[in-house]
Amino acid sequence: MIRSPARVGVAGATGAVGREMLRVLDERGLEVDLVRALASERSADRSLPFGESSLTVQELGPEGLEGLDIVLFATKPAVSREYVPVAVSKGAVAIDNSRAFRMDPGVPLVVPEVNPDAAAHHSGIIANPNCSTIQMVLVLDALHRAAGLRRVVVSTYQSVSGTGREAIEELRTQSGDVLAGRPAVSRVYAHEIAFNCLPQIDDFDERGDTLEETKMIEETRKIMGLQGLRIAATCVRVPVFRSHAMAVNVETEREIAPGEAREVLSSARGVAVLDDPEEALYPTQLAATGGDEVWVGRVRRDRSLRHGLWLWIVSDNLRKGAALNAVQIAELIVDGVSL
Amino acid sequence: MIRSPARVGVAGATGAVGREMLRVLDERGLEVDLVRALASERSADRSLPFGESSLTVQELGPEGLEGLDIVLFATKPAVSREYVPVAVSKGAVAIDNSRAFRMDPGVPLVVPEVNPDAAAHHSGIIANPNCSTIQMVLVLDALHRAAGLRRVVVSTYQSVSGTGREAIEELRTQSGDVLAGRPAVSRVYAHEIAFNCLPQIDDFDERGDTLEETKMIEETRKIMGLQGLRIAATCVRVPVFRSHAMAVNVETEREIAPGEAREVLSSARGVAVLDDPEEALYPTQLAATGGDEVWVGRVRRDRSLRHGLWLWIVSDNLRKGAALNAVQIAELIVDGVSL
Repeated sequence: MIRSPARVGVAGATGAVGREMLRVLDERGLEVDLVRALASERSADRSLPFGESSLTVQELGPEGLEGLDIVLFATKPAVSREYVPVAVSKGAVAIDNSRAFRMDPGVPLVVPEVNPDAAAHHSGIIANPNCSTIQMVLVLDALHRAAGLRRVVVSTYQSVSGTGREAIEELRTQSGDVLAGRPAVSRVYAHEIAFNCLPQIDDFDERGDTLEETKMIEETRKIMGLQGLRIAATCVRVPVFRSHAMAVNVETEREIAPGEAREVLSSARGVAVLDDPEEALYPTQLAATGGDEVWVGRVRRDRSLRHGLWLWIVSDNLRKGAALNAVQIAELIVDGVSL
Repeated sequence: MIRSPARVGVAGATGAVGREMLRVLDERGLEVDLVRALASERSADRSLPFGESSLTVQELGPEGLEGLDIVLFATKPAVSREYVPVAVSKGAVAIDNSRAFRMDPGVPLVVPEVNPDAAAHHSGIIANPNCSTIQMVLVLDALHRAAGLRRVVVSTYQSVSGTGREAIEELRTQSGDVLAGRPAVSRVYAHEIAFNCLPQIDDFDERGDTLEETKMIEETRKIMGLQGLRIAATCVRVPVFRSHAMAVNVETEREIAPGEAREVLSSARGVAVLDDPEEALYPTQLAATGGDEVWVGRVRRDRSLRHGLWLWIVSDNLRKGAALNAVQIAELIVDGVSL
């Protein structure tokens, strides 16, 4: 246990997730003694907003990682692999948002509403799951407790902010170019993302799956402690700035009517139900942006199965999908703060 | 059989699908004696491009429907319900693109590559299936013949051109407003479509399914002649101008490896395979637009099933999904023209 008030570092503080971590740290109840923004040498000495005040960025390195209790890493896997061990060797607990350590058997992979106890068994590193995994697993866990999961089939609609700030800029620039009749140039993505969907998130493996798809499958199994869970995923990038959506088809062991599923989900922590189609009430990415909830709507029977349900799940990938979940993990390991 | 050259009318000629029907009629080999563009009174006397020349729009009504062999209807269900019977009473065969007659047991629902023989058994009306159904059924039919279908789970990524010209304009206007920091106004859709996905296509029924989802299920069963086919669908509108995409999860009766599935699909009429993920080669809506093919990529195993496959299917919803399929049906019933 770390004693409150804690000394917290944010590595990769200038990126889309890093900035959101600073925002969430400022908003939440976690008492901090100091917050230090860390980034690459290139960004050192820049100023970042933090609540009413601002922080001067320090270089991410052995010196910058000195004297911290917790470091939230919003960095790419290679950077995490280099500096997470440094942070740990300096006595901090590292909460890492990259995929670098997530599937390491010695590293807990934590969604505080689902497996908070796992956070206690860390050896200096706790991994923050993939954004799509987090929002899906909150819903799946509630359904599993109520009716048992047999199989899950998910197709995602993921925003460009999952890639980072340069992808947000690419969508903005390309969209403007297309509307003006100018040719659009792709730098971040393999193809034009403006007014187009790309069935590729992260790299492909030799089986033709993307890393993102494999993450959703393997991380869900690890978080829920269900190694044999049957789950299939297709991950798609859509021309949306922020928040991820997903169509999830669930086969349960036991009968659960849509109305009962809505009740179960309404009382699940972190989950909110918005489901009145007659009034065109269902979650959308635009409406979910900036909020903390994992929204669920379009809960209905899939009549192609004996016990089948469809759900539409939407959440802000930078908040619950990344920054908020990481800060919640920090809260779990700081003395006297509970979820 | 209708004797070639045929006298062809296009009802709803000023809409997105109607204009595409004129374009396809001009491009294809169907010999025509005359082509007449029909639309509401409001559009009468307007001029529409047709090949190198142009057509003057006539009012859709008893007079305009006189003396035609075939009328392609690209009209809303209510308009089709009113004027399709008029066209038939004047001696024409009506090929209707709306949902008005599709599930009528006396009306054939035809995808020429899948069930061409059904077209012969009409009583004056042949229905053109839903855009999403057409592109999916070409692929499902090929897989069913090769390995037998057990269950299909589909999530769609549908463009705004499926709604019509005013929706294309709404996406364009809203996108410009958002990029300029102005508030966006929704007229066509229940929520903002710019940089947002809407899990609603057409109206909801009392079970919480949309008509679009029900169409995909029921029309696929009718076209394939598989009344018991287990199929589940979630239909989503995405901020893309043209072409529909879908992630399709298929369980087959017999083993079919991805490589074999690619071969089967490569030789299926109307289907083209683009599947080399290492080179970032997979179908996208932007690349499919304007073409006639139903593109398939990302063919891979779903390891959550004994015989499971994932596929990503993309096609131009205004071409094969509407205008081209309707003109192909016309070709089926005109003497001397084969697919």
